[in-house]
Amino acid sequence: MRVLGIDPGLTRCGLGVVEGLAGRPLTAVASGVVRTDAGAELGDRLVRIEAEVCRWIELHQPDAVAVERVFSQHNVKTVMGTAQAAGIAIAAATRAGIPVALHTPSEVKAAVTGSGRADKAQVSTMVTRLLKLAQQPATADAADALALAICHIWRGAAASRLQAAVERAGSGAAR
Amino acid sequence: MRVLGIDPGLTRCGLGVVEGLAGRPLTAVASGVVRTDAGAELGDRLVRIEAEVCRWIELHQPDAVAVERVFSQHNVKTVMGTAQAAGIAIAAATRAGIPVALHTPSEVKAAVTGSGRADKAQVSTMVTRLLKLAQQPATADAADALALAICHIWRGAAASRLQAAVERAGSGAAR
Repeated sequence: MRVLGIDPGLTRCGLGVVEGLAGRPLTAVASGVVRTDAGAELGDRLVRIEAEVCRWIELHQPDAVAVERVFSQHNVKTVMGTAQAAGIAIAAATRAGIPVALHTPSEVKAAVTGSGRADKAQVSTMVTRLLKLAQQPATADAADALALAICHIWRGAAASRLQAAVERAGSGAAR
Repeated sequence: MRVLGIDPGLTRCGLGVVEGLAGRPLTAVASGVVRTDAGAELGDRLVRIEAEVCRWIELHQPDAVAVERVFSQHNVKTVMGTAQAAGIAIAAATRAGIPVALHTPSEVKAAVTGSGRADKAQVSTMVTRLLKLAQQPATADAADALALAICHIWRGAAASRLQAAVERAGSGAAR
């Protein structure tokens, strides 16, 4: 499966595409950052992010889009812009008919480093190792977006295993 | 001028169109509320709000869109959804080439009631009176959207007067 991870932000929005299945080697397809000028009109910034998300979806045809879940507790100053960028990305993916999943920052950190409290450097190091990249992603936002995509592939597999176990238990009980 | 006011919200998003100029009687063109099911997927809810905002813009051809500025301090539980709905509305208006302005809740209350701390009932009563409506708007969200549009018409006029005064002072100094 191919997943587009999106680390939403108004000034920098990370994008990363990962292909693979849980338990198999993963491949980084692309990663990058959309930047918008802090002095520009909010509407123009949101439309620019939307256009880039649509372009990445068109270009990479992901099976799913994974977006970081934004909490109002953190970074009160930037959280509204982050939420708006996330909303724009979620709507763009939905319009394209692609399933959207949200993962919290600690779920993503735990998935790639084993610790929900890992710092940005650890996330970037593990993303580089897991995707066998020649060098670390150019920015923390790109690394976070790739981490989101990895997290989604692995959590999806875990959810499927759980679902299968539930179904097996159910059919066993019905016997 | 014709203004579309938008009181953003994920569960209920108020929309109100007002036509008029500052110092002249104002007319309510339309008002209503877009509701989305709290149990639906976030993406579907955002796309539904976007479609309705686009429909209202198409139908009423506003000269400006006024959106309530969302603060992260208030209603922590719902603020992320409110910010996302606002982002969707702002992007939709920008895509349609319509200028977007943000007004804070206290600016809107102060504009229509004279007090930035007015309650919902006072806002609704004043909106009804200012627009000479036969009855109060059906919901608080619709009333708030109409109040936003009124606020924008009046604040725009105040901003223009200030600009004109500055220009007069400038040309006087240049003499």
